[in-house]
Amino acid sequence: MKLIIINGPNLNLLGIREKELYGKDSFETYFEQLTLKFPNHNIEFYQSNIEGEIINKLHEVGFSYNGIILNAGAYTHTSLAIADALAAIKTPVVEVHITNIYKREKIRHKSLIAPHCTGSISGFGIKSYELAVRSFL
Amino acid sequence: MKLIIINGPNLNLLGIREKELYGKDSFETYFEQLTLKFPNHNIEFYQSNIEGEIINKLHEVGFSYNGIILNAGAYTHTSLAIADALAAIKTPVVEVHITNIYKREKIRHKSLIAPHCTGSISGFGIKSYELAVRSFL
Amino acid sequence: MKLIIINGPNLNLLGIREKELYGKDSFETYFEQLTLKFPNHNIEFYQSNIEGEIINKLHEVGFSYNGIILNAGAYTHTSLAIADALAAIKTPVVEVHITNIYKREKIRHKSLIAPHCTGSISGFGIKSYELAVRSFL
Amino acid sequence: MKLIIINGPNLNLLGIREKELYGKDSFETYFEQLTLKFPNHNIEFYQSNIEGEIINKLHEVGFSYNGIILNAGAYTHTSLAIADALAAIKTPVVEVHITNIYKREKIRHKSLIAPHCTGSISGFGIKSYELAVRSFL
Amino acid sequence: MKLIIINGPNLNLLGIREKELYGKDSFETYFEQLTLKFPNHNIEFYQSNIEGEIINKLHEVGFSYNGIILNAGAYTHTSLAIADALAAIKTPVVEVHITNIYKREKIRHKSLIAPHCTGSISGFGIKSYELAVRSFL
Amino acid sequence: MKLIIINGPNLNLLGIREKELYGKDSFETYFEQLTLKFPNHNIEFYQSNIEGEIINKLHEVGFSYNGIILNAGAYTHTSLAIADALAAIKTPVVEVHITNIYKREKIRHKSLIAPHCTGSISGFGIKSYELAVRSFL
Amino acid sequence: MKLIIINGPNLNLLGIREKELYGKDSFETYFEQLTLKFPNHNIEFYQSNIEGEIINKLHEVGFSYNGIILNAGAYTHTSLAIADALAAIKTPVVEVHITNIYKREKIRHKSLIAPHCTGSISGFGIKSYELAVRSFL
Amino acid sequence: MKLIIINGPNLNLLGIREKELYGKDSFETYFEQLTLKFPNHNIEFYQSNIEGEIINKLHEVGFSYNGIILNAGAYTHTSLAIADALAAIKTPVVEVHITNIYKREKIRHKSLIAPHCTGSISGFGIKSYELAVRSFL
Amino acid sequence: MKLIIINGPNLNLLGIREKELYGKDSFETYFEQLTLKFPNHNIEFYQSNIEGEIINKLHEVGFSYNGIILNAGAYTHTSLAIADALAAIKTPVVEVHITNIYKREKIRHKSLIAPHCTGSISGFGIKSYELAVRSFL
Amino acid sequence: MKLIIINGPNLNLLGIREKELYGKDSFETYFEQLTLKFPNHNIEFYQSNIEGEIINKLHEVGFSYNGIILNAGAYTHTSLAIADALAAIKTPVVEVHITNIYKREKIRHKSLIAPHCTGSISGFGIKSYELAVRSFL
Amino acid sequence: MKLIIINGPNLNLLGIREKELYGKDSFETYFEQLTLKFPNHNIEFYQSNIEGEIINKLHEVGFSYNGIILNAGAYTHTSLAIADALAAIKTPVVEVHITNIYKREKIRHKSLIAPHCTGSISGFGIKSYELAVRSFL
Amino acid sequence: MKLIIINGPNLNLLGIREKELYGKDSFETYFEQLTLKFPNHNIEFYQSNIEGEIINKLHEVGFSYNGIILNAGAYTHTSLAIADALAAIKTPVVEVHITNIYKREKIRHKSLIAPHCTGSISGFGIKSYELAVRSFL
Repeated sequence: MKLIIINGPNLNLLGIREKELYGKDSFETYFEQLTLKFPNHNIEFYQSNIEGEIINKLHEVGFSYNGIILNAGAYTHTSLAIADALAAIKTPVVEVHITNIYKREKIRHKSLIAPHCTGSISGFGIKSYELAVRSFL
Repeated sequence: MKLIIINGPNLNLLGIREKELYGKDSFETYFEQLTLKFPNHNIEFYQSNIEGEIINKLHEVGFSYNGIILNAGAYTHTSLAIADALAAIKTPVVEVHITNIYKREKIRHKSLIAPHCTGSISGFGIKSYELAVRSFL
Repeated sequence: MKLIIINGPNLNLLGIREKELYGKDSFETYFEQLTLKFPNHNIEFYQSNIEGEIINKLHEVGFSYNGIILNAGAYTHTSLAIADALAAIKTPVVEVHITNIYKREKIRHKSLIAPHCTGSISGFGIKSYELAVRSFL
Repeated sequence: MKLIIINGPNLNLLGIREKELYGKDSFETYFEQLTLKFPNHNIEFYQSNIEGEIINKLHEVGFSYNGIILNAGAYTHTSLAIADALAAIKTPVVEVHITNIYKREKIRHKSLIAPHCTGSISGFGIKSYELAVRSFL
Repeated sequence: MKLIIINGPNLNLLGIREKELYGKDSFETYFEQLTLKFPNHNIEFYQSNIEGEIINKLHEVGFSYNGIILNAGAYTHTSLAIADALAAIKTPVVEVHITNIYKREKIRHKSLIAPHCTGSISGFGIKSYELAVRSFL
Repeated sequence: MKLIIINGPNLNLLGIREKELYGKDSFETYFEQLTLKFPNHNIEFYQSNIEGEIINKLHEVGFSYNGIILNAGAYTHTSLAIADALAAIKTPVVEVHITNIYKREKIRHKSLIAPHCTGSISGFGIKSYELAVRSFL
Repeated sequence: MKLIIINGPNLNLLGIREKELYGKDSFETYFEQLTLKFPNHNIEFYQSNIEGEIINKLHEVGFSYNGIILNAGAYTHTSLAIADALAAIKTPVVEVHITNIYKREKIRHKSLIAPHCTGSISGFGIKSYELAVRSFL
Repeated sequence: MKLIIINGPNLNLLGIREKELYGKDSFETYFEQLTLKFPNHNIEFYQSNIEGEIINKLHEVGFSYNGIILNAGAYTHTSLAIADALAAIKTPVVEVHITNIYKREKIRHKSLIAPHCTGSISGFGIKSYELAVRSFL
Repeated sequence: MKLIIINGPNLNLLGIREKELYGKDSFETYFEQLTLKFPNHNIEFYQSNIEGEIINKLHEVGFSYNGIILNAGAYTHTSLAIADALAAIKTPVVEVHITNIYKREKIRHKSLIAPHCTGSISGFGIKSYELAVRSFL
Repeated sequence: MKLIIINGPNLNLLGIREKELYGKDSFETYFEQLTLKFPNHNIEFYQSNIEGEIINKLHEVGFSYNGIILNAGAYTHTSLAIADALAAIKTPVVEVHITNIYKREKIRHKSLIAPHCTGSISGFGIKSYELAVRSFL
Repeated sequence: MKLIIINGPNLNLLGIREKELYGKDSFETYFEQLTLKFPNHNIEFYQSNIEGEIINKLHEVGFSYNGIILNAGAYTHTSLAIADALAAIKTPVVEVHITNIYKREKIRHKSLIAPHCTGSISGFGIKSYELAVRSFL
Repeated sequence: MKLIIINGPNLNLLGIREKELYGKDSFETYFEQLTLKFPNHNIEFYQSNIEGEIINKLHEVGFSYNGIILNAGAYTHTSLAIADALAAIKTPVVEVHITNIYKREKIRHKSLIAPHCTGSISGFGIKSYELAVRSFL
């Protein structure tokens, strides 16, 4: 299977920023471990802080890959344009959040992209990504 | 590990009701398969349509089990009393939904119980329960 | 025809409680008269103050009876779980209210169960039940 | 008994418009059958697309007839002026809707005229009118 | 092609009222020029200040004409009954506004009739009508 | 001075309808007394239950009379079209209400026409009209 | 008759502040002219910028005077305490505003004190006070 | 006097759950001390997590006891059915809360049952019950 | 113990105003009886209609007294400044209301000061003050 | 005339994505045909998925071109920054939408950019662009 | 330059109240240091807990001073009367807050007085006053 | 000290766009003068119209600089992603606006980024930046 993890704004600070909330490891370190767990699958990784670049990437992979794991960060709650991109592409998408968004401010309780995803996994820390990969198997 | 799956109202109709939404198999059939996949763990199952009985069960297991997998059905969106029970107990709880609740009516987008759960998994059909079990391992 | 009248919370107080609003006769007295008017039909009666028991009863009768006449009382306005039960069963349901709910407080103007009923009859006092029976004939 | 059925805007298109929603027969055809069912009662019929003409008719009949059966169509949800007319007259009024307004758009869930009616019947197709007549007997 | 322009309330004052907003020419003068531009098409014109008369006209033309150009004026924002008429008829309807309604008060930002129109043209002054005619060609 | 009193829907029932709210005298009786009090002024009276006819009358008098006294009844709260007519005409308009609209239901607290009137007088019973006449002198 | 005009916050600046909105004369000048017009009546005047002092004054006069003319200024929209004072006293109160409050910001459209007044007069400039005096005669 | 304390959902966990919020003692221990303080009065105690069972108990005691002390827990904010039961019974009811509900989440600021209670006591910890008993003496 | 009762706006009218709501006795009469019941405690009394004077008094007593019993009247619902004063002082405060504020208009259901009080007692008539005193003992 | 069509996010997928909604042809194909229809005018085309790049382009052309035809896609409803850019430039802008946005989800009913455009054309499929071009001639 | 600092309710407690929020020094101490920093300017200071007294002071200085630095405390969010006073006077006003009001409760996010101030400075602790003085130089 | 000024969308048009609102000088000209005033400090300047590039810049400087002065333009009100970036970095941030945002449309009254800034300065024209620099000294 050909899968891609797409991370949105500020997730490049993982391991640097608010460690009590997001954990101590950078995503790169975690990603290496993750790919080792699924040696028979092809898992890529992409990160951008720019909304439109995430849309570009979704267009690029969204008609040929087997699955997309999307943590759109703050854009989850504000980007109708990413939601439209998800509605336009063919590849199934799983929404992932490191924290339980329902324990945070109200603005994070509403997801614009969720209606266009197959499913959603949130609150399991960085392990959320692994569960998302398993959901495709 | 000692885990329990608690299903809320109308989930006893699984396999009978709205099959295009919830699938064709009864939960009992699925539960049997699920336990076979995790032979080293002790997984129980409980279902009730009565809000207060779900609270009773949460009190009973919530100080000794290792994990609770809760699909509270419609009570997810209306029961502050179950939310209070979750806040009172010690065992970590994972919220599960068979369907992607964000694709359904607006009243189902708000979860009263989510802020008191560790994490949330929704939209993967009946497979959501398996992912929830894995999240505890 | 096999019909059932299901009464929700506090309707067991009919004839005792707020008589200027609900009338002086108990439902049992009225029910006897009602069945006499429709000798060729089989009409049952069930009452419970417990939301989940009403759901249980709906599951029990909802795949074999010809019609359900439901006065869910206050649960009309708060129970998404009963609404889900109505969506799941096959028997057509008619919603009944003794009083005109639009003359009462605002919270009673919104019915969660109405979208899952065939039709709705309200405001004719206890005679509302008879009109509901006639709607099935 | 002297009764009148008053139909509001667009109901003159019955049998022509959206047949899957409102049925195939014109109201005139149905009205003829209805009067035959109640040979001992005097039932009239009036239709107008003009809000103020409906008010005029309510003033005309509202102090002498025994009952008014009102399907105000879209004016149900927007006409405070008709609501005022109902509050001003003496004849009891029963609100009727062909469709279950709770299954339709949100703007149709709120009735301005309901608080000034004795009772309400909706969702039984064109048969709703017959049930309304019976409610007066 | 057989088209009709239907103008709603206060549009008979065009050229008299608020000239800085609506321009100096009466609609009659403009209409003459407009028909000259489209000599091969049959374009009619109707105006009324009465909501119900607009509904009557929509019923009259709505099953035989090729297109309706509707400027419902203030009824755009308050008339569910006109919206119902549009839903009931067969002829495609184009919504037209002389001014850009989004530059005006908030109550004018919501159109009840727009969901039942093919398309919408607003803000081009009286030229909006000509663009609407062209949209049918 | 040339003045006109324009009364909206249901005000033709004055003296008949809800007497404790609107008083016992018909408007005609009162109007006669009123004109006698102002022998040097020309005061007319018009009533209609039809929104569009009120607009027609406003167009007719709104460019030549010295003042309009408007009790738009329920249309005060729902008619953007009458509000537009007031914005379009030149004659100053005084809004009048027999009852204190702030003591009644919430829907009557908001006036769509008030922003287009010079001033507003309400709550003085039928005497409100006399005060409105005096405001023009 | 013994009447009192009570003016609320900032009305002491009349003639100084925003002249295009409130006119050029101070209230004192106007008040003198006003009392001359009603030589047979005893009219007093009181102004304070302090909410509680207005309440004190209302208590003082509210059981013995024949009428109160109250322009509560900005407290009209924010002071539940003045509203309570009006509900507690016996003297009838007429609400007065110099400007048409419906032409101003939204916060000024809601009056907390109006439900406790007999009537309301607004928009006639400083002449509003005279009309209010006349309403008591 | 014959009084009853009725405790709603999760209050059986008192002394076990969130001790910093609700205190260290179980309600049973406290209840014993309480009855000793009022030796001349008959005070009973009932607890249930099931909404409908609380309604049943209210029906049972609500026509013969002298007073009811009700801590409905989370049902305070969600149960219209318990509110209806309170409206239907005759015995006066005092609402009690251990914590100051205004210091907690917004959903707990609104009480559905309060309008049907004589009075309300909240925030005094478990001592709130004693004050409620005293309110009846 | 050194306690003070602080009464807000209009409470000086107790026994004069709306007797069916607030009772027949003036607060002074009641206060005398109250102090007699607690001979070992020092209870003072203060009333003002001026928001800022209540704040001044709270500052004066709020760092040395043992308890404050505050009935802020209408300021309960509108005064963020009094709420701030409560947050700033050290003496515990009990909120008191004579009537059950939940049986009154909606604006009275929200208390700005409640989150800064220890507890709240309402609806027991003038006896509410005595219960408040007892809560400190 | 020098015109430019600016397309926002996901419009590069035209002809690929949701064909039943947006049609089968790519925008490039359509654009070629469009320019052929207006041989005397200079029409350019730009597309970007990045909000800030659209702003850059608006700055670049907005002081020298004769007209801008803007289909901002999802940014229509979320980008205050594009709205600001439109307010800052000098070239008149026409808003275009392929679909009738009023037939779609509620979030698409509100346009942030519309108040800063001359006019708006929506719902005519890809032909909307041609009508926009004509609006400039 | 002649400047005045006006402090609203509870700011007299500075240095006493919530020290972690507002700092340890009294305003008097700080004010002395502040005036020393600007020896060529005349800076006064006024504080009151009474809304109307602040209005009185604004009237007094608002037509002759060069600048007003206003920290209206809680009245910032509730006093339309102070907002009106600011609109009426001529001296420019700078709004100051010690804390960042956006980090506090929602009710403090809306400022009624801000639209009538030249500018606003908040969040720099007591240093905010100095920045405000500098803004006038 | 090492400071950076970051300007968001459309601020590159300063001196070109809406001069009555933003002034006549370009930011570059102003910036030069500003740096001359603070010769002992290192002040940089960055501008971008792209939300994600602003985030990139915040990440780059946010762990080493002494202060950030951020005028996020329209993104102030819509970008949760920039707000997240501010929460993640370590350098203190001061929010700056040239205009008083409270005098403008409602959407500009709410700042998403303000809760993550130390303080806020707005309304002093381009001088706001200088005050912001001073706040760091």
